[in-house]
Amino acid sequence: MTTRRAETSATVIDHVLDRLSALGVRHLFGMPGDYNLEVLDRVVAHPGVEWVGTTNELGAAYAADGYGRVNGFGALLTTFGVGELNAINGVAGSYAERVPVLHIAIGPTTATERAGSAVHHTMGDGDLDRFARAHRQVVCADAVLRPENAQAEVDRVVTACLRERRPGYLRVPRDVALGPASPLPPLEPPDLKVADPDSLDAFRAAARARLAGADEVAVLADFLVDRFDARSELAALLASGPLPHATTLAGKTVVDEHAPGFLGLYSGAMSKADVRAAIDRADPLIMAGVLLTDHITGKFTHEFDPGESIDLGPTTARVNGVAFPGVPLAAALTALTELIGERRRASAHPSAATQPSESPSTTNLLTTVKNSATALTRTLCGRWVPLTQSHLWKAVGEILRVDHSVYADSGTALFGAAEQRFPSGARFVSQPLWSSIGYSVPALLGGQLADPSRRGFLLIGDGAAQLTAPELGVIGRHRLNPIVLLVNNRGYTVERTTNGRRAVYNEVVRWRWSGMPSALGVPDPLVLSARTPAEVDKALARAASTTDRLVLIEAFLLKDDVPPAFLRMIANRPDKAKWVP
Amino acid sequence: MTTRRAETSATVIDHVLDRLSALGVRHLFGMPGDYNLEVLDRVVAHPGVEWVGTTNELGAAYAADGYGRVNGFGALLTTFGVGELNAINGVAGSYAERVPVLHIAIGPTTATERAGSAVHHTMGDGDLDRFARAHRQVVCADAVLRPENAQAEVDRVVTACLRERRPGYLRVPRDVALGPASPLPPLEPPDLKVADPDSLDAFRAAARARLAGADEVAVLADFLVDRFDARSELAALLASGPLPHATTLAGKTVVDEHAPGFLGLYSGAMSKADVRAAIDRADPLIMAGVLLTDHITGKFTHEFDPGESIDLGPTTARVNGVAFPGVPLAAALTALTELIGERRRASAHPSAATQPSESPSTTNLLTTVKNSATALTRTLCGRWVPLTQSHLWKAVGEILRVDHSVYADSGTALFGAAEQRFPSGARFVSQPLWSSIGYSVPALLGGQLADPSRRGFLLIGDGAAQLTAPELGVIGRHRLNPIVLLVNNRGYTVERTTNGRRAVYNEVVRWRWSGMPSALGVPDPLVLSARTPAEVDKALARAASTTDRLVLIEAFLLKDDVPPAFLRMIANRPDKAKWVP
Repeated sequence: MTTRRAETSATVIDHVLDRLSALGVRHLFGMPGDYNLEVLDRVVAHPGVEWVGTTNELGAAYAADGYGRVNGFGALLTTFGVGELNAINGVAGSYAERVPVLHIAIGPTTATERAGSAVHHTMGDGDLDRFARAHRQVVCADAVLRPENAQAEVDRVVTACLRERRPGYLRVPRDVALGPASPLPPLEPPDLKVADPDSLDAFRAAARARLAGADEVAVLADFLVDRFDARSELAALLASGPLPHATTLAGKTVVDEHAPGFLGLYSGAMSKADVRAAIDRADPLIMAGVLLTDHITGKFTHEFDPGESIDLGPTTARVNGVAFPGVPLAAALTALTELIGERRRASAHPSAATQPSESPSTTNLLTTVKNSATALTRTLCGRWVPLTQSHLWKAVGEILRVDHSVYADSGTALFGAAEQRFPSGARFVSQPLWSSIGYSVPALLGGQLADPSRRGFLLIGDGAAQLTAPELGVIGRHRLNPIVLLVNNRGYTVERTTNGRRAVYNEVVRWRWSGMPSALGVPDPLVLSARTPAEVDKALARAASTTDRLVLIEAFLLKDDVPPAFLRMIANRPDKAKWVP
Repeated sequence: MTTRRAETSATVIDHVLDRLSALGVRHLFGMPGDYNLEVLDRVVAHPGVEWVGTTNELGAAYAADGYGRVNGFGALLTTFGVGELNAINGVAGSYAERVPVLHIAIGPTTATERAGSAVHHTMGDGDLDRFARAHRQVVCADAVLRPENAQAEVDRVVTACLRERRPGYLRVPRDVALGPASPLPPLEPPDLKVADPDSLDAFRAAARARLAGADEVAVLADFLVDRFDARSELAALLASGPLPHATTLAGKTVVDEHAPGFLGLYSGAMSKADVRAAIDRADPLIMAGVLLTDHITGKFTHEFDPGESIDLGPTTARVNGVAFPGVPLAAALTALTELIGERRRASAHPSAATQPSESPSTTNLLTTVKNSATALTRTLCGRWVPLTQSHLWKAVGEILRVDHSVYADSGTALFGAAEQRFPSGARFVSQPLWSSIGYSVPALLGGQLADPSRRGFLLIGDGAAQLTAPELGVIGRHRLNPIVLLVNNRGYTVERTTNGRRAVYNEVVRWRWSGMPSALGVPDPLVLSARTPAEVDKALARAASTTDRLVLIEAFLLKDDVPPAFLRMIANRPDKAKWVP
């Protein structure tokens, strides 16, 4: 990075594009609007960046987020007011989920602003800062660009995004975007791994004391390991024992799921019994980049005490609740790796890591509930053995390959897929904290453009898919070849488990999904459907071997069928009486 | 209203629903989310309100806006964070376009808030006010409901919406929504028509002086006449002369377009020559509820001087720039009606109102440009006479009926349709200030539910339609029977006229629209297509006579073809050289 020559930026928007390009951003998502058309001419002319138009700005924001997860940085460009507000939910998701994304909103010229004219896409009152103020609630840095500060402000906001791993927002009057810019040296990205030496020493001492005599060390890894670029440091720590470890839903695939010591998915009461026991009883538990949210802890049913753990946050490490600021995640992991090494050399007995367990541990209740669901189904459906969520997710797990990137939308798809052991190197993208349904269709668009060497594998329910389905057409336009597994259970099944099992509000309009890819202009799609275990196995096999086009598999599931993890959750919650599938 | 009995509200959400119901709201738009499911149980149980689930919350906001335009008030209910932010662009549109809409966002419980837990749909930092602060930028009143203030705050926000004709926002923790409420007397809606007597007298005197000797009085009517409920007062004024008058794009159908004195559509340089002359040269011009925005003035090409007009705003009237606050639009119109009556009685010569002109006045340039477009097309297409925008909008005008409500999206559809003389009583819904493409699909859903006696007639370009097309499935679910005229010119033609005539960013993905209604689950749709004038005439006739289902007409237009109003605009603008169709 430091050897890169000074850039020649003709205009302010070129400066922005150069900065993005230097960060590896090769695709800019968004939609045209009359305020940004001339700016888009500069985008189209830029040698390093390709324009990717979406069907709604919400799709652009989700795509930029998916892109940012894979590529380290994402960006979208919208028009004033209407366009930027369509995108704001996606930008907010990047904030919650810590994805660096730049949102560039191009607006009326400075002259229009000065005149206070009632132009379209405004409230007609001359106040052009409203939408910047709205965005300020969901970004880590924002700026209104002016000729005198434009480049400096761009660099400040981009640097904040890189440091915080969160979105930034630029409000750019069109004339400012097209105004002149000076050549500037490359941006020095913030180093996320350098620790304060004294603080690191103090942390090391405290951690050494905490680990002394401990023989039930385990690691729980979460999404901040990915976002703060500490995968390799985590892998080194895990290998140093090897240490038994699990990941959260949000952190799935931050570790190699076939490495020694990997236990599986931890999610409080939703976990399989052995994983739950290993994590809840660890002493100490090393929390690697963990944010304890409801969806990753089975609604806060975790039983370990973070106050007695070694808790490694993005920039602060904690030992038994004592904070060591200025100790970033990667540095803390490296320090712990050294400590575990010391311990191993000092000890006669190497740590015995738990080996991967291949058989799911099901409770009696789980079996009972599943059996009753199956019995009910047989009565209703007569001849065939219906497809179950339990079978479906196992079958998905079996065809996964190292070069797959799985995008799981919120809902049964997320919880069902996350439990499967993924091939080493396969990637899992989900949004458990922000949990905005429909996210994963555009996220796949972004992710697959960011890394075309991987095939996208989208897992999504029919309710969620209806929010952003039109972006499948954009996926088709770019000749991407994902597998789209649509779980059709005619509505919001996760919500049905919470409330309103037969309520009208949990039913969605019944789309004819088989006709949707063609209607959306996807070129020559392969559309398959499955109502039985055999059919889904066959469809998945065919999808895996058909790599030259988009494949849609519509899998029909019963409305009340849920993945095993969900049944464990229901079995463990106080109000379980409410749910009888 | 005043005779309505005190309501018995079991819970706070019932209180909200009772208030909405008393305002004539019979449909509540939105989407479920786990924070709002129990609240939706109360919605479903409410005798006066029907739940209408949309496919994306943006659709719910647009639908509530369309509903509010027809019904006087609209409402949507969403879930925290993700749901409410998806809707915010639609809510902002209601602010710009002055439609009273209540946005109810149901969030985590007070207990969760107090605990500061990192729950889904939040940023994980315990700050649950972020999205309320974002909404504060786009609503006229907002509140966070608490048990001790809930009902009073609901009433305050609803009253502000009624007074301001703008949206309001309620952030409601789920437990507060389900908490107890007391019976309260009916809400007294603010009176929008009562004037301050002294101010009204002063206005009357100033207006009398301004009108003395004036013999070129004309009226320009805009959307605020509709929003501030002054249609009948305006009609009385226009009839009192009768006075020559025009409407703006935004104000279209606030007057009877077959009444004596109606000139047509005024839009600065986009107007037909006779309308333009009559309005620009009026002395004085009476501006009835006018907001001078770029899209209604042909980009500020109006030549009349508001400072020399009688300018009637929502609550303030102005004569030659002197303001008379406390004189609402309706009261000012009534005062002017009296003054015109006085003048007529005093005068020997009754005002000669311009009679409706049936022939469009086209300029030479216009004809030249059209001919060259047609010639080009003949060469390209060989055998057939292609469909033109000019023909299309005339044909649409010819089949319009009194019971049609036309929803015109931003783009060529808006400018093309607005010029047609509508049957007395037919309604035109558009969004020229906010101009958010895709608005009109859900707006039609809302509007047609609000008034099922009218048939919706949607005019929309293929670019705009892609943003919200899934809501056609909801229209089908509710067995509505609109005519959907899709102008397929493969992208954003209005933008092409501005910049990037052949730019990739103005091209959209080519959908196979003929398959879309079925794919979206619309029951038994009639799908027609038209590539020639004869085909579109036939399709429109068939659509008009097929009233039992949704009819989609896909009309194929050339990429560069635009309505006559656009050509006049292009001919009149300084940079016209850029556009050669």
